[in-house]
Amino acid sequence: MVRLKGFQKLTSVDEAQRVFFSKIHIKKLKTTCVPLHSALNRILAEDVIAREDLPKFNRSAVDGYAVRAEDTFKASQFKPKIIQIIDKGEIGEKQAKKVWTGNPIPKGANAVIMLENAKSVGDQIEVWVSLTPGENVSQKGEDIRKDEVAVEAGTRLKPHHLGLIAALGISKIQVFEKPKIAILATGNELVELGSKPREDQVFEVNKLVISALCHELIAEPLDLGIAEDDLNEICRKLRTGLEMADMVITTGGTSVGVSDLVPEAVNKIGKPGVIVHGVAMRPAMPTALGVANEKPIIILSGNPVAAMFGFEVFARPLICKLLGLKHEETRPIIKAKISKKVTSALGRKTFVRVHVFQSNGEFFAEPVSARGSGIISTMTRANGYVVVPENREGLAEGESVSVRLFDTVETS
Amino acid sequence: MVRLKGFQKLTSVDEAQRVFFSKIHIKKLKTTCVPLHSALNRILAEDVIAREDLPKFNRSAVDGYAVRAEDTFKASQFKPKIIQIIDKGEIGEKQAKKVWTGNPIPKGANAVIMLENAKSVGDQIEVWVSLTPGENVSQKGEDIRKDEVAVEAGTRLKPHHLGLIAALGISKIQVFEKPKIAILATGNELVELGSKPREDQVFEVNKLVISALCHELIAEPLDLGIAEDDLNEICRKLRTGLEMADMVITTGGTSVGVSDLVPEAVNKIGKPGVIVHGVAMRPAMPTALGVANEKPIIILSGNPVAAMFGFEVFARPLICKLLGLKHEETRPIIKAKISKKVTSALGRKTFVRVHVFQSNGEFFAEPVSARGSGIISTMTRANGYVVVPENREGLAEGESVSVRLFDTVETS
Repeated sequence: MVRLKGFQKLTSVDEAQRVFFSKIHIKKLKTTCVPLHSALNRILAEDVIAREDLPKFNRSAVDGYAVRAEDTFKASQFKPKIIQIIDKGEIGEKQAKKVWTGNPIPKGANAVIMLENAKSVGDQIEVWVSLTPGENVSQKGEDIRKDEVAVEAGTRLKPHHLGLIAALGISKIQVFEKPKIAILATGNELVELGSKPREDQVFEVNKLVISALCHELIAEPLDLGIAEDDLNEICRKLRTGLEMADMVITTGGTSVGVSDLVPEAVNKIGKPGVIVHGVAMRPAMPTALGVANEKPIIILSGNPVAAMFGFEVFARPLICKLLGLKHEETRPIIKAKISKKVTSALGRKTFVRVHVFQSNGEFFAEPVSARGSGIISTMTRANGYVVVPENREGLAEGESVSVRLFDTVETS
Repeated sequence: MVRLKGFQKLTSVDEAQRVFFSKIHIKKLKTTCVPLHSALNRILAEDVIAREDLPKFNRSAVDGYAVRAEDTFKASQFKPKIIQIIDKGEIGEKQAKKVWTGNPIPKGANAVIMLENAKSVGDQIEVWVSLTPGENVSQKGEDIRKDEVAVEAGTRLKPHHLGLIAALGISKIQVFEKPKIAILATGNELVELGSKPREDQVFEVNKLVISALCHELIAEPLDLGIAEDDLNEICRKLRTGLEMADMVITTGGTSVGVSDLVPEAVNKIGKPGVIVHGVAMRPAMPTALGVANEKPIIILSGNPVAAMFGFEVFARPLICKLLGLKHEETRPIIKAKISKKVTSALGRKTFVRVHVFQSNGEFFAEPVSARGSGIISTMTRANGYVVVPENREGLAEGESVSVRLFDTVETS
């Protein structure tokens, strides 16, 4: 690939994603067995199949008396039916047995009268309601049947999935290992957080942010440190990253300057090298995408905001694939009215940072004004973003937009 | 409080929340100092204040040449201005110095020409565009000014917050300790996951689910185990929970049966004891709420689905308060069209489990049919819920509803 000066040729976001993702052969990650209580948010690697019916017996859904429904037909508060309480054995005609929620339904019974619908008088009860067969009974297998798939492989395990798996008596499951994402920052001007910068140096922030974004997806970030703007050093660190990780993400060194060394390094260390350099988006235009040793390398801008959007558009969907997810996980989407006009450049997919808030039950999206993609506080003042497509020059005030949320919305 | 047989008097959800939350004096949790890289999702305990301007100097937002904007006025591709490149020192009239993104702007310069808008010819450049003063310069302090609050106390720290704090050179911050939530399951029929149940026993699932829900909020669950339906045992375990934790959650033993021992135990161990017993909601009607030793005790149904909704309505907002959050965190809300009619009981706030999906760019909410609150698979087949208010008997087909999402929505 010949890089043109000033990105005279930019690739559209859709085309860049298509070309890049098509070059990557996603290998399934290894699986590992974990106890259920540490499986939250992990990705299930094998279908969980019910080994028996759930519930495994007909059970009472309430506290009350198990009876034959037929014996209660036509009962009412004015014309109660009298039923005999027994302690054990099969339920015969006009007989009942006390049961608590979850207890097996005794043989012979087919319904349960709720405690509050019967009055106990000695060893008898007065039944005030007419039950239909099956009433207040959870039928064997009504939750999940034996041999049915309870939770599919590729599911991110949420509390309710863990609950269902536990109910089936399964205490350990196979999940995919976490994909490893090696992260390298480049730039002579950078110092690690915690050290003392010279007058003309700045703290490196992108590794921390990208690591946190990986943690949010339950991927495992690996820190490759900071590389000087030196081709050999960058090549060396990229090679280390490719050995250790399933994917490499770099920040910095991807604009059109002489210090634009990362794409050069990627081309040097493997084939096919850089596939896309320069994307028709704002921010994150200098993003480059490459492949070496069959592993993806995502070359993000050194500007923190551009790096976050480059991650959002290219790294996030790819990590979802690496994770083994059945479906890509998108940000929650909320419809809102844009509170003021936004202008954007024709031919660029524009990511407008907005602050969504609720007012009188309606959601509004206030654009967060920003001049440069280096202004990190535009991200902390926003809680989401709106995508303006390439064929539009902006958004009109009051227009209804879909906001992708990266933080919570305060309720009024 | 006298509990009435069969919950003849139910408290509305709003009233139950109001009364319960008003009885609880939320003490601020202790704070702890953590390195920034382990602070993701923790709650910031003290405002982060900028110790210096960010950026700390006027810096270039692009790769290019720092110049005096005045020297470029009226320049165009047809009438370029010629400017002399210098290596060091102050920028004088018709002088320029090469800068990379992030470099300090040299004295004398007030704008930066992007590389692609100039042509280097020997030690001169031809400038093709007219710049305005300040163009392509990130001004000192334009992101955050010295002494400004960068991130407010009570914020849940997301990747972008960590990025801003790091950019300020702050590597350690004060966050609140995680609130401790002790969880007790009750019921003779329960066995711990991993053990072998008798024919009439079932696996305990609620502790696992509630723990996972706590983990999602970054609270710390503590396992009090399973208590038999025995008043003394329940009292003993509740006392342990109150000593160890900031809040206690129990499951089971809160219906109207004889086995309804937990509210009794709560009344026995402390004042004011049970405040609400029986809530006008579906599921989770038997939920009870109490206070002892100034700590909240939430008594959930033993039915897993009811337990989850009881947690959602009472435990979740309270944990948000305990966490020290500025704002309650609500589930993401999505507007969708309900795909079929739903009936609900007048006088009960009804939580309808739904599966939200996208079709032709529109969101639909398909109600997940369910007979009992014990059917856990209704939660795994759903990804959100709709609240039907007490004064309605259901939802009409095609009605627009607000779905609160507890899982992701698949995109088509």
